[in-house]
Amino acid sequence: MGRWEPNARGRLAEAALELYSEHGYEQTTVAEIAKRAGLTERTFFRHYADKREVLFAGSGELQDLFARAVAEAPERAAPVDALAAGLDAVSGAFADRWEHARRRHAVVVANPELQERELIKLASMTAAVAGALRGRGVTEPAASLAAEAGTAVFKVGFERWIAAAEEGEMAGLLRAALAELKAVTAGHAAAV
Amino acid sequence: MGRWEPNARGRLAEAALELYSEHGYEQTTVAEIAKRAGLTERTFFRHYADKREVLFAGSGELQDLFARAVAEAPERAAPVDALAAGLDAVSGAFADRWEHARRRHAVVVANPELQERELIKLASMTAAVAGALRGRGVTEPAASLAAEAGTAVFKVGFERWIAAAEEGEMAGLLRAALAELKAVTAGHAAAV
Repeated sequence: MGRWEPNARGRLAEAALELYSEHGYEQTTVAEIAKRAGLTERTFFRHYADKREVLFAGSGELQDLFARAVAEAPERAAPVDALAAGLDAVSGAFADRWEHARRRHAVVVANPELQERELIKLASMTAAVAGALRGRGVTEPAASLAAEAGTAVFKVGFERWIAAAEEGEMAGLLRAALAELKAVTAGHAAAV
Repeated sequence: MGRWEPNARGRLAEAALELYSEHGYEQTTVAEIAKRAGLTERTFFRHYADKREVLFAGSGELQDLFARAVAEAPERAAPVDALAAGLDAVSGAFADRWEHARRRHAVVVANPELQERELIKLASMTAAVAGALRGRGVTEPAASLAAEAGTAVFKVGFERWIAAAEEGEMAGLLRAALAELKAVTAGHAAAV
């Protein structure tokens, strides 16, 4: 069957996001997603466990990417520089994904269950990055704090990226957010 | 009825935590909690919406305490110093609550649904602290980043506090975690 269903996975994801955006996540059924993609429900379930999974299928990949880049940063890099390398890697995964990321984010924030899921995925990413830092010899609590900081920078930078009036480079915004966090913790960002 | 039920709320919370620790959260019913506390189910529902709420009743209070202390820090304090004031205030709320906090944490980490709830409460606390910082004139993204940093410090410091072999001062551990975060973001915490 495969040859009649080129990029079934991507088509299903695109169809799902369209329907969630148009009619709302709750109102959309797997049957409708499959139909919109021109595929069968059976094909849907070969690629995704359920309609929620379509939105979070990339989370594990993102987590691995972040943690791996942290682990593979130059040996003598300080934890914060390893984090910066991880944030760069994460940015790369979002190249040409701005419209998609914006639409996905709008769907997630409109639904408490999806927001919870997003928080869990972020906590899981933080744990993976903390593990990668410990693997570099960073002790606790520095490893967990640095990982939390990395997730905070990703969250805040990501939200600025998708809130922009037009598509820009995510890497620059994440670097700026990291610089801002450094300034804040150093006490340099004074209240107006 | 009130005069026959001195501190019903506290007794119910204590009974619930005992039962969750002994038999697990899922296995415990509201009827059992009320019975252990020597009260009726009706009294339980006058104080708590459900058995989950018993574990999170203090979260709103903690959030208010943190945000208020940040808002009320000296006018010229830098954001990070306002955060430190907030963390001190939060520590005060846990005085003499070490055993309770340890038992509660063990119940929460044993149950995915409760962990999700905890993440949502922490996200809500972060949003409240970011709001308090914006109220001080701190601009975005500094306000959100500082608030995320504050929550990270609270989480990591709290976990160290409850993991200790004996009861200690939470304030000192939170201050140490904040100092560690400063060092990490400044790039001073080198990998071993």
